[in-house]
Amino acid sequence: MAAVISPATSLRFNPCSTLRFITGLPRKLSHHILFPPISRRHSSYYFRRSFCSAVPAGEAAEKTKPDVSKDWKVTRGEKVGEFRKKLRISEIKGGRDEGLDRLGQTFVVKGWVRTLRVQSSVTFMEVNDGSCISNMQCVIDSTTEGYDQVESGLITTGASVWVEGVVVASQGSKQKVELKLQKVVMVGKSDPSYPVQKKKVSREFLRTKAHLRPRTNTFGAVARVRNVLAYATHKFFQENGFVWVSSPIITASDCEGAGEQFCVTTLIPSSGEPASSDVGSIPKTKEGFIDWSQDFFGKPAFLTVSGQLNAETYATALSDVYTFGPTFRAENSNTSRHLAEFWMIEPELAFADLDDDMSCATAYLQYVVRHVLENCKEDLDFFNTWIEKGIIDRLTNLVENDFVQLPYTDAIELLLRANKKFEYPVKWGSDLQSEHERYITEVAFGGCPVIIRDYPRDIKAFYMRQNDDGKTVAAMDMLVPKFPTQALVWGSKDLCSLSLE
Amino acid sequence: MAAVISPATSLRFNPCSTLRFITGLPRKLSHHILFPPISRRHSSYYFRRSFCSAVPAGEAAEKTKPDVSKDWKVTRGEKVGEFRKKLRISEIKGGRDEGLDRLGQTFVVKGWVRTLRVQSSVTFMEVNDGSCISNMQCVIDSTTEGYDQVESGLITTGASVWVEGVVVASQGSKQKVELKLQKVVMVGKSDPSYPVQKKKVSREFLRTKAHLRPRTNTFGAVARVRNVLAYATHKFFQENGFVWVSSPIITASDCEGAGEQFCVTTLIPSSGEPASSDVGSIPKTKEGFIDWSQDFFGKPAFLTVSGQLNAETYATALSDVYTFGPTFRAENSNTSRHLAEFWMIEPELAFADLDDDMSCATAYLQYVVRHVLENCKEDLDFFNTWIEKGIIDRLTNLVENDFVQLPYTDAIELLLRANKKFEYPVKWGSDLQSEHERYITEVAFGGCPVIIRDYPRDIKAFYMRQNDDGKTVAAMDMLVPKFPTQALVWGSKDLCSLSLE
Repeated sequence: MAAVISPATSLRFNPCSTLRFITGLPRKLSHHILFPPISRRHSSYYFRRSFCSAVPAGEAAEKTKPDVSKDWKVTRGEKVGEFRKKLRISEIKGGRDEGLDRLGQTFVVKGWVRTLRVQSSVTFMEVNDGSCISNMQCVIDSTTEGYDQVESGLITTGASVWVEGVVVASQGSKQKVELKLQKVVMVGKSDPSYPVQKKKVSREFLRTKAHLRPRTNTFGAVARVRNVLAYATHKFFQENGFVWVSSPIITASDCEGAGEQFCVTTLIPSSGEPASSDVGSIPKTKEGFIDWSQDFFGKPAFLTVSGQLNAETYATALSDVYTFGPTFRAENSNTSRHLAEFWMIEPELAFADLDDDMSCATAYLQYVVRHVLENCKEDLDFFNTWIEKGIIDRLTNLVENDFVQLPYTDAIELLLRANKKFEYPVKWGSDLQSEHERYITEVAFGGCPVIIRDYPRDIKAFYMRQNDDGKTVAAMDMLVPKFPTQALVWGSKDLCSLSLE
Repeated sequence: MAAVISPATSLRFNPCSTLRFITGLPRKLSHHILFPPISRRHSSYYFRRSFCSAVPAGEAAEKTKPDVSKDWKVTRGEKVGEFRKKLRISEIKGGRDEGLDRLGQTFVVKGWVRTLRVQSSVTFMEVNDGSCISNMQCVIDSTTEGYDQVESGLITTGASVWVEGVVVASQGSKQKVELKLQKVVMVGKSDPSYPVQKKKVSREFLRTKAHLRPRTNTFGAVARVRNVLAYATHKFFQENGFVWVSSPIITASDCEGAGEQFCVTTLIPSSGEPASSDVGSIPKTKEGFIDWSQDFFGKPAFLTVSGQLNAETYATALSDVYTFGPTFRAENSNTSRHLAEFWMIEPELAFADLDDDMSCATAYLQYVVRHVLENCKEDLDFFNTWIEKGIIDRLTNLVENDFVQLPYTDAIELLLRANKKFEYPVKWGSDLQSEHERYITEVAFGGCPVIIRDYPRDIKAFYMRQNDDGKTVAAMDMLVPKFPTQALVWGSKDLCSLSLE
């Protein structure tokens, strides 16, 4: 039995092809820019898609001749081919029996060479296609077509290759199957100075080779986990009947005044050359103020600090909605608690109270974490071993434990009764400090995630609904054990995949 | 048999509750900001979620007393409740037999009053919950708890209500079932001046009432279709093994130089008050240039014009990836072909050629359109009747027809042979005009979507791969019949839900 993944006979590919699809938002900022201005004039966009095949800089791609047949019928054209999902290494090795169920089948793998071990009669080449951390071990000998490229040292670590071979049982202990190659084609060669070799490299070093970082185990794993988290986010809300709303990014509104805003302008020359940014060339009025009428939108415009206002107008029409898009804060505060640019999810529930909020938040968090545990097992194993020991247990704990809710007032009482001396005093009306939160989740509730609700009015935002006691508001914070003072991090502080305000 | 959707006994809800989830991106723009800087320092974010219940401005919400039990065990807390999907009008009326299968069942509907017809012994109230265009007709008589609120005229069009009733067969011709109410509760009252009454209102007028626009049929339908398109986009790429990459929005790179950029800065006071934007207060160097070292990122920063460069670094590590996020162009060109802010999808296929590009583009377009046809039937019927006659046929045509591909050179030959006089001359090397494209799709190929490929090098971007003929590049444009000169519009030019560059 043989299954060959296209293209198996003729080879004509580029390392990278680009498609572009555009969904439109409007050009003009009008008075009501705070609402998604779907119906603005000039918002239609010419229906054209520009597709191109791009060769990324720095990677020389050797191409075989295209075998494009030249006998097009001008009056007939030719049918566009069927789009087929590629079979990836993750599916071969992640399948039943780690690939043993596919013995004897022929596969094509397209990826990048991780290591190459040349032995007297046989060469072992590890190829990674980015679908998982695992490489496919490829066995090459003199019967392999293209063996000369291996023998001559043309194919090295970092090269992109197209290989075709038969799945055979592996003699090695690291994998159950390997690919005995019939054919190897080098698609793009690699420089001997290729920096992502087998030895471990620091993240500081990788920052100087940012275009190659995704080829490391760590960055690849983070990208896959982020992807699963993002998709699980959409799945959760869609399955629960929420409508995704894309709130405007450029806005004249500062929502609830949540933070400092970045100004968006074309009054400053956009070349990025300091020498071309003459302050004197900024249009100004007689009084010496910036002449906003000459700016792109004819008035000051900013990056959104929150899509909440827009989402609310949709929630009070469509019921439950959510935003999931980038948000910006310009506070000049370089702490681990502040970000200049982040993707934020803002669900708005109609006809809901704080209990519904808490239920939704809990269900959401457990849903996405469960998705990661189920779909990123190998990546989490990697984090667990190399980045953050115990991460899998902590995430499993999050999914399997019931969340507990506790009013702020009770939390204060609990802390006052605690047989523990805190650095910061415990006092009704003060915000909880990390040490307090840690005590609550880790000691008082033995590792359970805890939601603190009904905070004092004076330490929360103005727009939160006041409770009937006149002193507290219907607000809540979710505390997750072992994540008290940092983001919910996959791996380490440096690897922020999902954090929750 | 009775199915009651919570809350059925005690009522304590706000019109709108907010959740916030934040996924982190970094604060610091460093040298390599063009790559998603996942591992930057300071990128972790404090794990806290601020939840609040917000009452939207302009809608007074009357609340019943909360029945929160006060006997919390300080040391025990209380379990967070289960999150349950709401049953919506779309599911009741969109089910088998349009709701007749649910006769005798008890339901709770939460929504907004569209119309109210008071008759001598009975009142008909149409309630919409945003799940579909259809309202639920509610029948109220003197036996209904809360009838006095209807009788006294307190509940009017636009009010938000909570109703509970039994599904009965409707005598009316417009619907098969209606809800005979046992109870009606007004959650938020409406002003007599509420502008979205039954009569048709212009979009120009609605622009001045932007916070209420989503309650109209048109805006509600557009929002639902956009949502289905966006989710189908993620589904398509995820099911085909693509990894979603969130490329940075604030960037120091201008990618392929695709367009003019907006500058992002904190050097200009962000209050938005013209009087506070004194040009003299912008920090400058001795030479009179803007002192970028005092800006937020210490250097000029801009809004991204494309995530392609970032996506390419991931595509050459993870294989197929896609971006789906906002993009910005600052060209001062107020045409229907340009947008200042738009959401763009940029798939990057590794080891792919133009044929794969075309297959992917075709499969994607057919997939998302099929999703809309299947999931937004009522909304499309509305567009078909009121906004754009024939839209359903055209979309069905798109899904059911094979797409045809044709090299640019053949397209020129076809146009030269055409028995038609064009306004713009047909000449190899010139870009195709709308009239040419229309002839190709509508006349020459009788309504088939056509992809034109292999354009002359000189009319395409510098980074496109040159074909072996030395004259053309591996680029393509997709032409869809009847959408030749405007966006793929659900409804009209004004209602741009998905357009494709």
